[in-house]
Amino acid sequence: MRVFGIDPGSVRTGYGCIDTDGRRHHLVDCGAIMCQPRAALADRLEQIHTRLRELISAARPDCIAIENLFHARNVKSALVLGHARGVAVLAAVQAGVPIVEYTPASIKSAIVGYGRADKRQMQQMVKLLLGLDAPPSPHDAADALAVAICHVQASGPIAQIAARAAQPGLPRSWRNMKPEQLVRRQAP
Amino acid sequence: MRVFGIDPGSVRTGYGCIDTDGRRHHLVDCGAIMCQPRAALADRLEQIHTRLRELISAARPDCIAIENLFHARNVKSALVLGHARGVAVLAAVQAGVPIVEYTPASIKSAIVGYGRADKRQMQQMVKLLLGLDAPPSPHDAADALAVAICHVQASGPIAQIAARAAQPGLPRSWRNMKPEQLVRRQAP
Repeated sequence: MRVFGIDPGSVRTGYGCIDTDGRRHHLVDCGAIMCQPRAALADRLEQIHTRLRELISAARPDCIAIENLFHARNVKSALVLGHARGVAVLAAVQAGVPIVEYTPASIKSAIVGYGRADKRQMQQMVKLLLGLDAPPSPHDAADALAVAICHVQASGPIAQIAARAAQPGLPRSWRNMKPEQLVRRQAP
Repeated sequence: MRVFGIDPGSVRTGYGCIDTDGRRHHLVDCGAIMCQPRAALADRLEQIHTRLRELISAARPDCIAIENLFHARNVKSALVLGHARGVAVLAAVQAGVPIVEYTPASIKSAIVGYGRADKRQMQQMVKLLLGLDAPPSPHDAADALAVAICHVQASGPIAQIAARAAQPGLPRSWRNMKPEQLVRRQAP
């Protein structure tokens, strides 16, 4: 399966594409679309959309994973970020493949095992998970690869059990367990 | 001159196109792109973008005027609204004609003469200014026509004098005058 990850931003939009069999991941391509911070927002939106469409059509992924957002520093930065994410989602939907979305906290949890991991920890874990010699740079590229890896983890059995364990019907002791422990507990 | 106005929204996006000689305006087309509120945001974004591109390429405007936003109820609604406005701005920039942006307050000031005018007042004034038999409906269409009319007013002499009058170098008595009074005062 080939997954294309996007970490949207109004100045830097990270992208990262991986091939995976569900356990081992292999880097295909990654980088960041850099816009001039002083350019008009309209021109930046066109640049992000055009470049993403080119990259997605070159990569031909089976699925596109995008970082989802519910928080921003303030209303003004939320509006600007919304513009950039809007054209990124549009480029993804125009590719005609399934789109999945993950919040920053769930991506960090899936990659580092801790929802408030910092950028350096994320870069190091992405490097380890993809077997790279150096952490992907800039960090926007690492973040985009992390979204893609997060989706692979989330589609596997660990995530499914974790999702079930988070349901209120389950015993409290289960809900507080890490997904790995749940897997081990379920194994015969 | 033909001006195409857009009032972006994540569920209803108003559009309105006018022909104008600077004084008299003539309605060409108006309406609203209605999305299913329960549809996925990605699908709504695609619908808004595709439909706007069709409408703009059919209208062939000289200029596109879009309502600008700096405020929203909260961060979450700002993010969603930002997505919708992002794809609307993208559709406009892809048309290759100049884009102008006006805040809701400046549009209301230009149309009704009062920055906090309500939707009904706006509909009535748009009806009067375009010489229509009934106010444009839905109100999103009227709002989009208002942005287009606002741009025509803003490019005229009244707006230029008003902009000059707002500069701190002018006498205070001038700064507090309405643009119409300034025009009369300047006329021989």
